[in-house]
Amino acid sequence: MKEVLAYLEKHKETHLEELKKFLHIPSVSTDSSHKNDVKNAAEFVADYMKEAGFDKVEVQQTEGHPLVYAEWMEAGPDAPTVLFYGHYDVQPPDPLDLWESDPFQAEIRNGRMYARGASDDKGQVFMHLVVLKAFMKTNGSLPLNVKVCIEGEEEIGSANLYEILHQQKEKFAADFAVISDSGMVANDQPTILYGLKGFTGLEFTLKGPDNDLHSGLYGGAVKNPAMAMAQLLATMKDEQEVVQVAHFYDKVEPLSEEERTLIKDAPGEDYPASTGITQTVSEAGYTAKEHTMARPTLEINGLYSGYQGEGTKTIIPSTSTAKLTCRLVPGQDPTEIQDLLVKHLEEHVPEGVTLSIKREPLSAKAYKVDPDHVLIEKAAESFAETFDKEAVYVRMGGSIPVVEWIDAIYQIPVVLLGFGTPDDRLHSPNESFPVAHFEKGMNTLVHYWQKVKDYQQ
Amino acid sequence: MKEVLAYLEKHKETHLEELKKFLHIPSVSTDSSHKNDVKNAAEFVADYMKEAGFDKVEVQQTEGHPLVYAEWMEAGPDAPTVLFYGHYDVQPPDPLDLWESDPFQAEIRNGRMYARGASDDKGQVFMHLVVLKAFMKTNGSLPLNVKVCIEGEEEIGSANLYEILHQQKEKFAADFAVISDSGMVANDQPTILYGLKGFTGLEFTLKGPDNDLHSGLYGGAVKNPAMAMAQLLATMKDEQEVVQVAHFYDKVEPLSEEERTLIKDAPGEDYPASTGITQTVSEAGYTAKEHTMARPTLEINGLYSGYQGEGTKTIIPSTSTAKLTCRLVPGQDPTEIQDLLVKHLEEHVPEGVTLSIKREPLSAKAYKVDPDHVLIEKAAESFAETFDKEAVYVRMGGSIPVVEWIDAIYQIPVVLLGFGTPDDRLHSPNESFPVAHFEKGMNTLVHYWQKVKDYQQ
Repeated sequence: MKEVLAYLEKHKETHLEELKKFLHIPSVSTDSSHKNDVKNAAEFVADYMKEAGFDKVEVQQTEGHPLVYAEWMEAGPDAPTVLFYGHYDVQPPDPLDLWESDPFQAEIRNGRMYARGASDDKGQVFMHLVVLKAFMKTNGSLPLNVKVCIEGEEEIGSANLYEILHQQKEKFAADFAVISDSGMVANDQPTILYGLKGFTGLEFTLKGPDNDLHSGLYGGAVKNPAMAMAQLLATMKDEQEVVQVAHFYDKVEPLSEEERTLIKDAPGEDYPASTGITQTVSEAGYTAKEHTMARPTLEINGLYSGYQGEGTKTIIPSTSTAKLTCRLVPGQDPTEIQDLLVKHLEEHVPEGVTLSIKREPLSAKAYKVDPDHVLIEKAAESFAETFDKEAVYVRMGGSIPVVEWIDAIYQIPVVLLGFGTPDDRLHSPNESFPVAHFEKGMNTLVHYWQKVKDYQQ
Repeated sequence: MKEVLAYLEKHKETHLEELKKFLHIPSVSTDSSHKNDVKNAAEFVADYMKEAGFDKVEVQQTEGHPLVYAEWMEAGPDAPTVLFYGHYDVQPPDPLDLWESDPFQAEIRNGRMYARGASDDKGQVFMHLVVLKAFMKTNGSLPLNVKVCIEGEEEIGSANLYEILHQQKEKFAADFAVISDSGMVANDQPTILYGLKGFTGLEFTLKGPDNDLHSGLYGGAVKNPAMAMAQLLATMKDEQEVVQVAHFYDKVEPLSEEERTLIKDAPGEDYPASTGITQTVSEAGYTAKEHTMARPTLEINGLYSGYQGEGTKTIIPSTSTAKLTCRLVPGQDPTEIQDLLVKHLEEHVPEGVTLSIKREPLSAKAYKVDPDHVLIEKAAESFAETFDKEAVYVRMGGSIPVVEWIDAIYQIPVVLLGFGTPDDRLHSPNESFPVAHFEKGMNTLVHYWQKVKDYQQ
């Protein structure tokens, strides 16, 4: 292990330069104009695995973006097999004018690597690739059997991965999985993430007149679709942030006193300081920590109607549209919740406008693993040895659908080793990732692979 | 008069071609990138007046777009002076993809001239210019003294005209004014427009976090500005279309029984048929006709927050913005109403977001003239002689601020001779103007100038 750590130290500048190359590829999966860039990012990962000495490296074509697969299975039949999953696609960078540097020209400022994807997920994926290569270049082997699965559609719902995992179960079968696509609760604070929220969503449009109308001539005869949208959205949540969609909370696993204590002990984020809001706002009866970690949410992600340009335009808009997503907790079924949303909209749409709904096809249940599991304990130990701190245990508000699918298909533990921080600005302008976490985190992984090489299911 | 009518008939093709040239100039006043086009449109008008033989033709520079002025005062001291006002600027054409032909390549289809500005207001302005030229070319004179004032900022609130009218009262002083910037209640149905609504507006933004946030990590701690906007807007009108802003209706001139009868007798528009809405929706206690003509309105013209692109983006938006305008009726003061809107927003803004407001600087009171005034009667006669139909008397929901200013400064009657139709699609894609109205309407004007040449205040 010492040699592997020394190798990492020796080549650390090179690894940062290689990461920059990876970040330079604008692999925006949701935007069809970037299809070739996404493919190039897949090739980058595949080439790296080949160069590391992995077997069966393939850029697997799908109906969407490619999936990169590689394996090294020579640790022997007694050694466990880990499935390492990550994604090489990234969120759109917009709004571009708010970035201080080009989102796809990675640069290091104040100890952070700035680029879209630096934290979510390329920085963290690349940590794993470098560590695996370090073992291979140093020892010519890995401590355990490793299957690598890096996809290009996580930001758009992983539709093809879902199909592939179900159709090719044997190929991806393992004893446990490891994913690094989440974050620590604070900079330099190792965090065991033992739960994720689920996800469901939809987009809907209200239509009034066939065209935008002159607001003077038609105001008073026509239901304004923008006002109708406001009235409709206002029925979905009350002023105490309680979702008003009937039966939304029916199957929610209640928050136990034990968990409330665990959550209370976990470090919180000073949201006004970190985000610029004037005050935190959360569901009546729950703290912001409890709500972000363990209560479901309903959020409008986009809302638009009518004229948005310079100056005034006195129209009644023809349509209005809202994009809405919910984060779910254990107990809630995504399809059921989506049905409840649809029913609520249909029952509350104001008179004078017509409703059309586009359901988000992909979704995920929430996920929870036992914090006392040996693989979780080993992770906490590895963190303690490299970050010199005890880990905290948290559930997080984000969703990683593949975690739920792996759980459903294989019933294996999924260990979420996140190296991000609250300042990383995921999904926002000026995303970044601390170089210190990139470096210390790779050491954590080296320790971890060593510790789990004798794991038996 | 016969010779003038004959001249118009003889040169009708030429006049349509000249109108097309006028329409080809994209004089979009609200868009600073069209500043030169606006100037060219002003020059077009000035050149036409010069060619018609008018005196003192000037393109008057302002702090914004130019004002075109011309006069012919040789009808003698006993003859009345009319101030003809119009505007050569137009609304933005967007959304462009909904136009069937280029908005600035005028073409005639099915008896209609299609172009942005064909009805509002270039088609109608040009009718007047052609008629004045026809008198000058035929008789070498006009039946009365005429002052022509064609501005380039009507679509953006006429800020500089307001200043000029107040600073140069003598220059524009007249015995009455004529404006053709409105429409008939139906195709080929002469309409006496004896009232207009006033206008006020504002734009406001709610800000939550400094940046868009990851909805999984921050949902549950942060008030979503899009939901806050929906909740705030929903407080402004109830489901019966009654504005909920305190004191909004306090000074509204009540609708008398006589007026309700007048309105009932005026032809209505089949709104579902003409606009595509499923049903009309109007203020509780009032019909759609009553509400559009004689009750105040509050309409959202634009609304936007967060992600609007292709696919999903799981963010809590940083901000949300709404553009809102009100149409006012006699009794309401625009500045007072704007103050009430501001007060309402400040009192109802949800917790966790901050409010910033941008007041629309220009506004107008409502306007009403006595339907029995002799100048109104003469207009009805002129219509009857050229359209072969009795005129109907209506109040309209649109606003023309300059009407209110002329009323306030000069206390002279303003005669609204509108030649537009409900199918013209003002402010919308595929705006058009019937060629038949262009031609018959010019005849109406010829009759009218003859009839009013002996008018004494």
